[in-house]
Amino acid sequence: MPLVTLLDYAGVAVFAATGALAASRKQLDIIGFLFLAAVTGIGGGTLRDVILGVPVFWVSNRAYVPICAVVAVVVFFGAHRVESRYKLLLWLDAVGIAAFSVMGAAKGLAITGSPIIAVVMGMLTATFGGILRDMLAGEPSVLLKPEIYVSAALAGAALYTLGDLAGLPAPVSALIGFAAAFIVRGGALRFG
Amino acid sequence: MPLVTLLDYAGVAVFAATGALAASRKQLDIIGFLFLAAVTGIGGGTLRDVILGVPVFWVSNRAYVPICAVVAVVVFFGAHRVESRYKLLLWLDAVGIAAFSVMGAAKGLAITGSPIIAVVMGMLTATFGGILRDMLAGEPSVLLKPEIYVSAALAGAALYTLGDLAGLPAPVSALIGFAAAFIVRGGALRFG
Amino acid sequence: MPLVTLLDYAGVAVFAATGALAASRKQLDIIGFLFLAAVTGIGGGTLRDVILGVPVFWVSNRAYVPICAVVAVVVFFGAHRVESRYKLLLWLDAVGIAAFSVMGAAKGLAITGSPIIAVVMGMLTATFGGILRDMLAGEPSVLLKPEIYVSAALAGAALYTLGDLAGLPAPVSALIGFAAAFIVRGGALRFG
Repeated sequence: MPLVTLLDYAGVAVFAATGALAASRKQLDIIGFLFLAAVTGIGGGTLRDVILGVPVFWVSNRAYVPICAVVAVVVFFGAHRVESRYKLLLWLDAVGIAAFSVMGAAKGLAITGSPIIAVVMGMLTATFGGILRDMLAGEPSVLLKPEIYVSAALAGAALYTLGDLAGLPAPVSALIGFAAAFIVRGGALRFG
Repeated sequence: MPLVTLLDYAGVAVFAATGALAASRKQLDIIGFLFLAAVTGIGGGTLRDVILGVPVFWVSNRAYVPICAVVAVVVFFGAHRVESRYKLLLWLDAVGIAAFSVMGAAKGLAITGSPIIAVVMGMLTATFGGILRDMLAGEPSVLLKPEIYVSAALAGAALYTLGDLAGLPAPVSALIGFAAAFIVRGGALRFG
Repeated sequence: MPLVTLLDYAGVAVFAATGALAASRKQLDIIGFLFLAAVTGIGGGTLRDVILGVPVFWVSNRAYVPICAVVAVVVFFGAHRVESRYKLLLWLDAVGIAAFSVMGAAKGLAITGSPIIAVVMGMLTATFGGILRDMLAGEPSVLLKPEIYVSAALAGAALYTLGDLAGLPAPVSALIGFAAAFIVRGGALRFG
């Protein structure tokens, strides 16, 4: 499934960017950028794979850790040019949640065949990296309002799973789920 | 072991209720209730199974996630009728710790055969869900006084394990362990 | 590899001691000492083994949990004689980070054969126990300045891995990595 693979790389990269932006807001050094980028980028998928009992994705596929490192370095040298790092962090976070809610549900469904487990996996894949980032960096974003994060992840995971059950092609289900999660999260950012 | 299975369902349900009560105290919406109920209800057993290297219980047995969801909905519509949600949370937490200290020890003993590992598994099964709940919801209960939680879980896990080593029937060991943990935790609530 | 095994026992023991010292600073009771000693001593290696998908070290080797318990009891009865428990905690933490950065990298390399994964495993083995300790005990040490911890762990894991790739004997690589991590962390303590 190339679209799902693309979502996975994109999700890791944008979540890594949010971790690096959190490091930038805390004025950490390059090591702090690398650390928060990696934890945020691969944290959710790590928990998903450990709970599913399958090999952890970034141990099997060696591209993910370097992706996080490259993103951290780019943000380290570029973040000061951004007008509002916090706003950028939140919008990238919305993209990451949308990508990972679909990716997590797709992997959960592929491994277990259970729609309920698929939805739960989409939700935890999408939210856990951001929770780790905010706990480690002391950011209030996720922890103060977990409902919006969880709602967006739930929308994405549930619609992907329903689309799959309804027999839609995987890319169509993925796009529907991605759009739903992004609209819920983005709407809360824009109007909440 | 039907009694141990019953303890497991009961432990998940009462811990889920404590998570939902924490959501109620924070005035979260229904999604917040579902999230905290699930994290608290299945968090401890998830860590236990991941460390033991066995399939995670709620991925194998699809009843647990819906149990958490039903409990979250019931608490969502009923919690405002309770005089002191915090007191109820603490007492249900005591029941959950008692159930999970025995259940965790039983599973640890069944998988590894080691009494020491059994006791550690009972302790982490019983305490981890509450630690997650309190970290995510900002509740002070577990984190300020971890000793009482850990002591209760230790009492339950150790007495169950000793009973099993002494050749007692499993339900008898389970009842002794459950009672010991509940008395330690409840006594601290009543007299501490 | 006896030196690596020795590093592993030493790392667990000194990290357990830092957990017990944190318990002492918080004036917890003996159960609090045991809890924080165990979480800090075995937390990092647990995460490493779970992510690598190998049996968790302290479930396979029953010596580790009793080591943590003995260390907790010794610190419980001896910590009040130490002039500055916080300084001792930080220096022992430096030893633990040095030991675990090498041990984590060695295990990551042995299991996966990937230098990148080895370095990441060294870093998370060395830092995760301390992060758990500081979150649970409310200590500011790791969380306020994660860069120094991560830098030290990175130095140790990277130099061990480079030494191994360069064909050095394992004990030599281990000593180089240990020394590098300890110098980075100790230098920050002494001069930072």
